[in-house]
Amino acid sequence: MKFTLQATDTHSMARAGELTTAHGTIQTPMFMPVGTAGTVKSVHQRELKDDIHAQIILGNTYHLYLRPGLEILEKAGGLHAFMNWSGPILTDSGGFQVYSLSDRRKIREEGVSFSSHIDGSKHFFSPENVMDIQRTIGADIIMAFDECTHYPCDHRHAKRSMEMTHRWLKRCIARFNSTENKYGYEQVLFPIIQGSTFSDLRKQSAEFIAGCDLPGNAIGGLSVGEPAEDMYKITREVCSILPASKPRYLMGVGTPANILECIALGIDQFDCVMPTRNARNGMLFTGEGIVNIRNEKWKEVFSEVDPDGKCFVDHYYNRAYLRHLTISKEILAAQIATLHNLSFYIRLVTEARERILSGTFAGWKNEMVKKLVRRI
Amino acid sequence: MKFTLQATDTHSMARAGELTTAHGTIQTPMFMPVGTAGTVKSVHQRELKDDIHAQIILGNTYHLYLRPGLEILEKAGGLHAFMNWSGPILTDSGGFQVYSLSDRRKIREEGVSFSSHIDGSKHFFSPENVMDIQRTIGADIIMAFDECTHYPCDHRHAKRSMEMTHRWLKRCIARFNSTENKYGYEQVLFPIIQGSTFSDLRKQSAEFIAGCDLPGNAIGGLSVGEPAEDMYKITREVCSILPASKPRYLMGVGTPANILECIALGIDQFDCVMPTRNARNGMLFTGEGIVNIRNEKWKEVFSEVDPDGKCFVDHYYNRAYLRHLTISKEILAAQIATLHNLSFYIRLVTEARERILSGTFAGWKNEMVKKLVRRI
Repeated sequence: MKFTLQATDTHSMARAGELTTAHGTIQTPMFMPVGTAGTVKSVHQRELKDDIHAQIILGNTYHLYLRPGLEILEKAGGLHAFMNWSGPILTDSGGFQVYSLSDRRKIREEGVSFSSHIDGSKHFFSPENVMDIQRTIGADIIMAFDECTHYPCDHRHAKRSMEMTHRWLKRCIARFNSTENKYGYEQVLFPIIQGSTFSDLRKQSAEFIAGCDLPGNAIGGLSVGEPAEDMYKITREVCSILPASKPRYLMGVGTPANILECIALGIDQFDCVMPTRNARNGMLFTGEGIVNIRNEKWKEVFSEVDPDGKCFVDHYYNRAYLRHLTISKEILAAQIATLHNLSFYIRLVTEARERILSGTFAGWKNEMVKKLVRRI
Repeated sequence: MKFTLQATDTHSMARAGELTTAHGTIQTPMFMPVGTAGTVKSVHQRELKDDIHAQIILGNTYHLYLRPGLEILEKAGGLHAFMNWSGPILTDSGGFQVYSLSDRRKIREEGVSFSSHIDGSKHFFSPENVMDIQRTIGADIIMAFDECTHYPCDHRHAKRSMEMTHRWLKRCIARFNSTENKYGYEQVLFPIIQGSTFSDLRKQSAEFIAGCDLPGNAIGGLSVGEPAEDMYKITREVCSILPASKPRYLMGVGTPANILECIALGIDQFDCVMPTRNARNGMLFTGEGIVNIRNEKWKEVFSEVDPDGKCFVDHYYNRAYLRHLTISKEILAAQIATLHNLSFYIRLVTEARERILSGTFAGWKNEMVKKLVRRI
């Protein structure tokens, strides 16, 4: 895997780059649609490619491991073949889901035992087997197995958790290095910085992770309920430590405004369920602000879903129709809103990239953020 | 509206024709996907056109009247504009839904009072206002307001009901003729034959309906639980009375085998929720038989959804993947299965047409029916 830094903004830390994977080159900053169980909910793979212009998608190890399971994924030749997605795939490590979804889970030094949310069956994730699982899923980018602390979290717990995440990382690296690429193409491992909202811990973690010299670096444990200012502060501090020559991935972030602010702080890579999950509840992100399409005010508004939108749905359908579908719980409502939101997110980071390359990012970002947070 | 009969099969009563409406010409036999509330569930309008090759869709008056309601539809300029579907639309009269969906309904000579299944609000449908409602929806083909009897139904009740349907038809025609096309294009009215499974009543009804000399004729009250042989017998008898020069629409039918059999009896026009509703439960119709994609046997079958299919989904996805999506209740499962089933239905009637035109329909139909009913 190769990362080329193409430009750094003069008025911020924003960067434009190119990340080359076995399944294609990704232009950064990038946004990765979340494809939890081998599908970006309500979106066809050809729409991801042709209408949303997704460059990479994210799969969830926890979900894929439980269903369809590794045996089927391996027989299919990996997730790319199983779902017929030819672009790059990043998988999270399953850690976050184990903590947040599983009713009963027990974290020990060895790993995490948990019960399936589907049938209650018992399972065990360790740094080692999570490497094996992600290799079998066939991810281009494999994430280290970490512990993600809740917010708020006291310093003592955050420190202890971070230290275990570091020890787990060493085990991840050892296992990753002693195993082969599963399907003949390159797979790489990204480590994850933890340390909650404590600057001293984050600094220590960033230095440890940077020292591992892996092909990219991720920041976990943010966007878990802390104030946005804390997220920005930690991101800024961590980015000042991480090497400029490698991609920086801020996990699970966020709103369109969060993403622009974090691009300005030096982040290259994002994922978030917000554009897809909120779409299914009728929330549309636009360049003029946030639309709740369920609102009575759209009842007789027959103008386009988003006149400035770049996806066919923005011009094919009107707001009153989309409101009707949403209120009526029609599947097409989720389809339209998801296509719109993902297209909007990806267009936003693409424009950020263009602005960085042309030297007009910082001013544009400040203007955009004001509009993005409005409720219209 | 103009119907041209292009060919009649020499070995059956099957016909090929062309029906020209204000929104385009439809080649018959035709299958109309059901778009209950202004959307064919889980299918984009552009997919209806480009992937399924639907020539016409059906809207449900009952659903559209309740939600989004006539005020919105009228302000939108009718359903075509509201949902952005430029092809022809047929609306049912709402009668069937009122009887089957509404908890409380009271049928009198004047019309039917009923409560909304959404909010319990009280409403009244009469032959007159149902004409007005369908004009406002903007249907190209408007259906008469009829009473659809349940099966089984005794002769006395069936006769009384049929006679009321005939009286209602006269009122429908009077209202239809005294009102204008709503949006500047032609709207036509089709009457509906009733009479349950009684040959004498059906004959009487077919003669009455044929005598009204409207641009097309429909058969209602079949496919409501009676044996298939009764459906075929009544369809055969009714078709022998209906004029050959007008399209014949068999409402709510049916399985792929039912459709081929009824084409052989002289039917030109079909609609049914089966391909869409059953898709959402994991049932796929194929030329080799019926697939229950939830079945364990498809767990590790990575071959195409339907190797003989004509829709992109048939070749883009594999059965194990579709099974996984279905078991996981993913929206994409409904999207794929619905596209497949509708494409299959429409391809089936299209091939029937080609066979009628080339004089090879009857033998092909008999071979196909054997395969279509298999469970594979």
